[in-house]
Amino acid sequence: MVSIRMVAKKAGVGAGTVSRALNGSGYVAEETKKKIMEVVEELGYKPNELAKNLLKNRSGIIGVMVPDLENPFFAKMMRYFETELFKKNYKCLVCNTLGIMDRQGIFLEMLDRNMVDGIITCVDALPDFPGRNKKAIVAMDRDWGEDVPIVRSDHDAGGILAAKQFIQSGCRHVLQFYTVERTTQPSNIRHIKMEQVLREHGVKVTDIDIKWDAMGYEYNRNTMWKYMELVEGFDGVMSNDIGAMACLAVAHKRGIKIPEQLKIIGYDGTEITNISYPQLTAVKQDCEQIAKKCVESIMKMMDGESRGEQEVLVPVLWQQGGTV
Amino acid sequence: MVSIRMVAKKAGVGAGTVSRALNGSGYVAEETKKKIMEVVEELGYKPNELAKNLLKNRSGIIGVMVPDLENPFFAKMMRYFETELFKKNYKCLVCNTLGIMDRQGIFLEMLDRNMVDGIITCVDALPDFPGRNKKAIVAMDRDWGEDVPIVRSDHDAGGILAAKQFIQSGCRHVLQFYTVERTTQPSNIRHIKMEQVLREHGVKVTDIDIKWDAMGYEYNRNTMWKYMELVEGFDGVMSNDIGAMACLAVAHKRGIKIPEQLKIIGYDGTEITNISYPQLTAVKQDCEQIAKKCVESIMKMMDGESRGEQEVLVPVLWQQGGTV
Repeated sequence: MVSIRMVAKKAGVGAGTVSRALNGSGYVAEETKKKIMEVVEELGYKPNELAKNLLKNRSGIIGVMVPDLENPFFAKMMRYFETELFKKNYKCLVCNTLGIMDRQGIFLEMLDRNMVDGIITCVDALPDFPGRNKKAIVAMDRDWGEDVPIVRSDHDAGGILAAKQFIQSGCRHVLQFYTVERTTQPSNIRHIKMEQVLREHGVKVTDIDIKWDAMGYEYNRNTMWKYMELVEGFDGVMSNDIGAMACLAVAHKRGIKIPEQLKIIGYDGTEITNISYPQLTAVKQDCEQIAKKCVESIMKMMDGESRGEQEVLVPVLWQQGGTV
Repeated sequence: MVSIRMVAKKAGVGAGTVSRALNGSGYVAEETKKKIMEVVEELGYKPNELAKNLLKNRSGIIGVMVPDLENPFFAKMMRYFETELFKKNYKCLVCNTLGIMDRQGIFLEMLDRNMVDGIITCVDALPDFPGRNKKAIVAMDRDWGEDVPIVRSDHDAGGILAAKQFIQSGCRHVLQFYTVERTTQPSNIRHIKMEQVLREHGVKVTDIDIKWDAMGYEYNRNTMWKYMELVEGFDGVMSNDIGAMACLAVAHKRGIKIPEQLKIIGYDGTEITNISYPQLTAVKQDCEQIAKKCVESIMKMMDGESRGEQEVLVPVLWQQGGTV
C-alpha cells in the first residue's frame, strides 16, 4: 500500500505538507501542491479514511436502531434514514434489536468509543438510560428522557382522522389493536386519542392488547383470527398496516363484505397496502419527512448547535382506499 | 476527554506501556498493569475505537448493498446479514442503491479507503468492475465476475419445484413475470428452468417482461392488473412474492376463484405471504442460511484463507399455502 511518506519522499517535501495539500488546511505553495498531486496520481495514493477520521475525531457514521427490519414501517424508515444521511455525507450503521439481548447497550457503547458519531433510535430506552452525557441521540416515536429530542408523526391528528372516518361511516363499535400497557410511548397517542373521540360520540371501543414485540406478520394474522371470532358485533377495526391487512384476509376467509359489513383503517400507509383488494384505507405516516427531521436534528447536535425543539411533529397524511 | 497520555502520566509510565497493557500485546509487569488499570478506572478512560482500528487496519464494519430495503426479500436478508455479522463481532453498514446514482462505486471506494473491511453485495456489478484487487467481496444472487464468490438459492431446484406443482395441478398455460433481458443474473435461473420443464410437458408459457428495477408494490400491482386483462386463457401465474400477492388482489377484484380457476405460486416466501387469503403457496428462500453462508465466505476472505467454492448453493424450501 502506498503511504503518505512515500508520496512525500517522491515529491521532495515533508509528510505534513502532503497532508495539508490533500486536506486543504494551511498554506502550501501552488507549485508544490501541483507537484504533490502529480505524485499522488502517479503512485495511486489513497488517504486512509480511518486515519483521517481519527484526526477529526469523527467516524462519519450514524447508528440507526430499529426493532425489526422486516416490519414494513421500519424498513421504509431505514431506507429514508439511509438516503437522508447519505445526502449529508454520513453512512448508516444498522441495528435490529428485536429478540436480541442488550443491543441498545452495545450501540450506546459504540457512541462512547467514537465508533459512531450519533444514534437515531426507534427502539425503547434502556431502563438505566442516564442521558448519555448529552451525546448526539435522536429518538423517533420513543421517549428517551428530556436529554433526547423526539421526532414523530402528529399522532393526535392521526387518531382524530381515524375516529372521524369511523363516525362518518356510521360505525357503532370499533376494535383497536395495540399494546395497551405502553401508554407512555408516543406512538400510542393515536390509539388513546381515537378512543377518546369515538367515546365522545357514543361509539363503543374495544381495546385488544397485543404483545409489545408483536412485529411479525404471523402473530398479527393469528391475533386477528382469534379476536374476530371472540368479539361480537363490531363494525370497525383499527390497527397498524400488518394487522389491518391480516384483518382483511380474515374477512375474505369468513365472507365478510368490505367495506359494507366492516370498515378497516390501517395506520402507517406503507407499501404493503398496495397489494390488497380493496386497497387499505390508512392514516399514512410521512416517513421521508420524519427521516429528514431526525437527520436535521442529529446534525445540529453533532455540530454543537442548540438542538432546537424537544419534540418535532410531522403531519400525517390520509390514504383513501376502499376499506371504509 | 481523557487521553492515553493522561493515563500514562498519572500512572507514571509511558503511553506505549498503557497501550500494551490495554491491548494485551507485549510484556507489561503485573504490578504496572494493575496500577494502569486503577488509573483507567479512576479517570474513566475509554480507548478510542478509531485509534484501535487504525492500529489493526480494520474498521470492524462490513458494507451490505441491497437494491431496495422496502422489498420484503431484501429487508429479510438485511435482518439476517446484520444478525450473522453481529455474531462475528462485525457491524453492518447499509446501502440502498435503487434510484440513486453510483452508490456501488461509492461503497467500493470505501473498501479501498479502509472504511469497511468487506462488502456483501445483492446488487448489480459496475460495468467497469475490475475484480477490485481480490478484496473481500461476496455477491448474493449476482454475477460480479470470477474474483467474487456467489452465494444463492438453488434456483434450478426452485424452478423445477414450481413447474412440477403447476403440472400436477393440471395447468395448461402459465404466465411468469420477470426481467427477461437479464438472462445472466443467477436469480433468473428459476424462470428459465421452470419454463424449460413446463414446455417439456406441453404447457404453454408466456413471459411478461418487467422493468429490472421493478421492486415497488405499486408497479407490481399495475403490471398484474394490465397483463391479467391483456393475456387470455391462462390458468397459472408465477412471480416474486409482491407480484404474486398483487395477482391475488386482482383475482379478488375480478371474482376469479383461487385456486379453482387460477393457480398462483410466489417466489421468496417472505413474511408478507402470511397476510393474504388464501395464504400464498411459494418457493421459499432460506434467507437465514443464505446470510450465514455469505458471512462465512467473507470472513474467510478477510482472514486471507482460501475462499472456498466460487458458488455456494442453499436449498430452497416449499411453502404450502392455498393458492395452488
